[in-house]
Amino acid sequence: MGGAVRPIPHASTRAAVLDVIRAAGTISRVGLIAATGFTGATISTVVRRLIDDDLVVETGRAESTGGKPRVLLQLNPAARYAVGVHLDHSGITYVLTDLSGAVVARMSRTGAGAEDPPAVVARIARETAALVAGAGVEERRVLGVGLVAPGPLTARSGMRPAPPPLRGWADFPLDDAVGEATGLPVVLGNDATAAALGEYWSGAVKGSATFAAVYVCTGIGAGILVNGIPYHGTSGNAGEIGHVCVAADGPECWCGARGCTEALAGPAAVVAAARADAGTARAAGLAPEPRRGTSSVAADFAAVARAARRGDPGPKALMDRSARYLAVATRTLATVLDLDRIVLTGQGLAVAGSIYLPAIQEELDRTFFARESHPVAVQLSTSAATAPAIGAATTVLQSELVPLHTGTRIPADLAEEEQPRRAPAARG
Amino acid sequence: MGGAVRPIPHASTRAAVLDVIRAAGTISRVGLIAATGFTGATISTVVRRLIDDDLVVETGRAESTGGKPRVLLQLNPAARYAVGVHLDHSGITYVLTDLSGAVVARMSRTGAGAEDPPAVVARIARETAALVAGAGVEERRVLGVGLVAPGPLTARSGMRPAPPPLRGWADFPLDDAVGEATGLPVVLGNDATAAALGEYWSGAVKGSATFAAVYVCTGIGAGILVNGIPYHGTSGNAGEIGHVCVAADGPECWCGARGCTEALAGPAAVVAAARADAGTARAAGLAPEPRRGTSSVAADFAAVARAARRGDPGPKALMDRSARYLAVATRTLATVLDLDRIVLTGQGLAVAGSIYLPAIQEELDRTFFARESHPVAVQLSTSAATAPAIGAATTVLQSELVPLHTGTRIPADLAEEEQPRRAPAARG
Repeated sequence: MGGAVRPIPHASTRAAVLDVIRAAGTISRVGLIAATGFTGATISTVVRRLIDDDLVVETGRAESTGGKPRVLLQLNPAARYAVGVHLDHSGITYVLTDLSGAVVARMSRTGAGAEDPPAVVARIARETAALVAGAGVEERRVLGVGLVAPGPLTARSGMRPAPPPLRGWADFPLDDAVGEATGLPVVLGNDATAAALGEYWSGAVKGSATFAAVYVCTGIGAGILVNGIPYHGTSGNAGEIGHVCVAADGPECWCGARGCTEALAGPAAVVAAARADAGTARAAGLAPEPRRGTSSVAADFAAVARAARRGDPGPKALMDRSARYLAVATRTLATVLDLDRIVLTGQGLAVAGSIYLPAIQEELDRTFFARESHPVAVQLSTSAATAPAIGAATTVLQSELVPLHTGTRIPADLAEEEQPRRAPAARG
Repeated sequence: MGGAVRPIPHASTRAAVLDVIRAAGTISRVGLIAATGFTGATISTVVRRLIDDDLVVETGRAESTGGKPRVLLQLNPAARYAVGVHLDHSGITYVLTDLSGAVVARMSRTGAGAEDPPAVVARIARETAALVAGAGVEERRVLGVGLVAPGPLTARSGMRPAPPPLRGWADFPLDDAVGEATGLPVVLGNDATAAALGEYWSGAVKGSATFAAVYVCTGIGAGILVNGIPYHGTSGNAGEIGHVCVAADGPECWCGARGCTEALAGPAAVVAAARADAGTARAAGLAPEPRRGTSSVAADFAAVARAARRGDPGPKALMDRSARYLAVATRTLATVLDLDRIVLTGQGLAVAGSIYLPAIQEELDRTFFARESHPVAVQLSTSAATAPAIGAATTVLQSELVPLHTGTRIPADLAEEEQPRRAPAARG
């Protein structure tokens, strides 16, 4: 029978225990045994090492029901930090979070624009160093950089095919270059998935941890969370609703397909249509030609959205049309994944969110396929500008904090049965 | 620190051990300890109970590398059986599988057609009893009935909104009625999800256990498997690509939305278009009016597909148009989920599959968003007629067999780290 099995705690056990402590706020060792299913010996060993590494601190005692009071443990949020960098054409957003995911510093800088990739990377390294130094955080406590950018990301690096404003990045080894320039480990990810994670960690999403964040920045995307865990797909490019077809005979998109949501409804399409009509361009205050360096799709899109909200008919018609297509694409996402919650996020929605929200909610109420089973709630993010950067930072923290329950939805017929809990791998 | 933790095996531990034995073919107790991470004591207790219950048998001994030879365990496939019932307008398909998921009996009968739901349910009970008796299986060994039907299924029962041919079922308590008529537990599910599961269990899908089965029967749907586990969504209605929008200005669908795949490309739409054109109807050999009882959408659709394969221009144009829309919807599914494999299945593809397959593969090669990262392989099912019924039966078996690894895809940054294994829940 293999004799006694001696559990040897390894990295994932430690991360799982740390995540339970984080989620609990304060918890005793006995509480950890109950919450994780690990043995008393395992918890004792893991907690001792976490305390030695300064990741966990003992903090007072809880009243016990008989017996001696129990020592409470809590996360030491200042033990480790992570940098989140959100790279986009129109802006680069930085956050520094502590181990609990709380933002301790943030800053926004000029976007990738027309700069060469190496110049942008050198700037990212300088700006990251400034962020960390400005917050008074020791460099050795920074775990790494979470870097998110528009998809599709290839396995090693680069964006292929790259969105038009970022064409120069198609073959650029983004993660290696940033890793070298900053001297920190880099976790590369999709901006929309990071946005969903950022919404979840910042507590904006109540109730279900299975939802999608529809993300509008320079382009359109979506991030999918299943039980609080990002759904990545085969290559980290899941959720790209900007490139699902909403009109089989529609215009060609930069991605090579036809009738994509982004080609019909995206900020660049809206701005191009506004600029093509003199009256609409005037109403929105757009220059006849985009001025290199002083104008960007994001700023022009916000100007069209502001004019639409004022009621100017040209801009309003364009924004309504865009909202209608985004609503149809969101319905597709909700129907394919049978979702009950959508969060609208991204800097593109700062002004336009109040136009898109009612259009999307109305479409889902009327045409979501399983609407007789349940509604789909749509909400506007309250942290749209920083959600992707926060999500990027949390992907770094997750190397220290791994949730215990990473399962997909449990089939209805099994849901009432107790699930087995994890234990450290055994060596016989 | 809470004293000794005494693991008490519960239902899920037992199911997990049983599934490891199933997957292994034959395995020793030492092998089970290594594969599951459970302690020797737990494995010993669980295996003894599985043998007592006749679910597992000891079968010979393996040569050991030194020491005494080890007793090998294997599943007793004849210990338990499950019935799978696939209910559709145009046919009802039954399978009886043993505990290993192997089909021991199958039969096809007339579909729900225009019969009243209670009459169909009474027939299902009779036909189920005949299936079990005909296979010479004792009733007490039948775990239950997996019953799958077109979505959307509401929480308790019924299809709301119901597809037009099944309108009488909208408020019918399907699971309760079949449970009462058969005297067996019933697990209700979506036909397309069951089809994906059936493809997976029947071994048709090699490689990745994350894929979608695009399912064409009377309607169009899709089933999604993530790491071999069905993705159900909030209400069991995930994957409904028949009701995603591929043409925002397209015709109204019975579901209430506009431009749905099913309204443009589904078998009923193809047959209606063929019937509306005298030349096409003649080429396909369709009667001018559908004859109640003697004709069905499925048979007429197959007739149009056969005429298209012969090269008749009218039917060919209709099938090419249908294939084009289904290809676009499949691209949407692949892009949203970042899939690398699609299986085409369902009785509707028996004849039409060879028309759809190249159209879908071409569309994905050309326009799948992450195509620079990886291709999407498309394959035609070799068990299209029975896949949903097999999948239905496996949902019942899963109450005895629960896979150990039910996690979602592990993020790239964690993939190289060893994952913790499960152990029985501890009681401190």
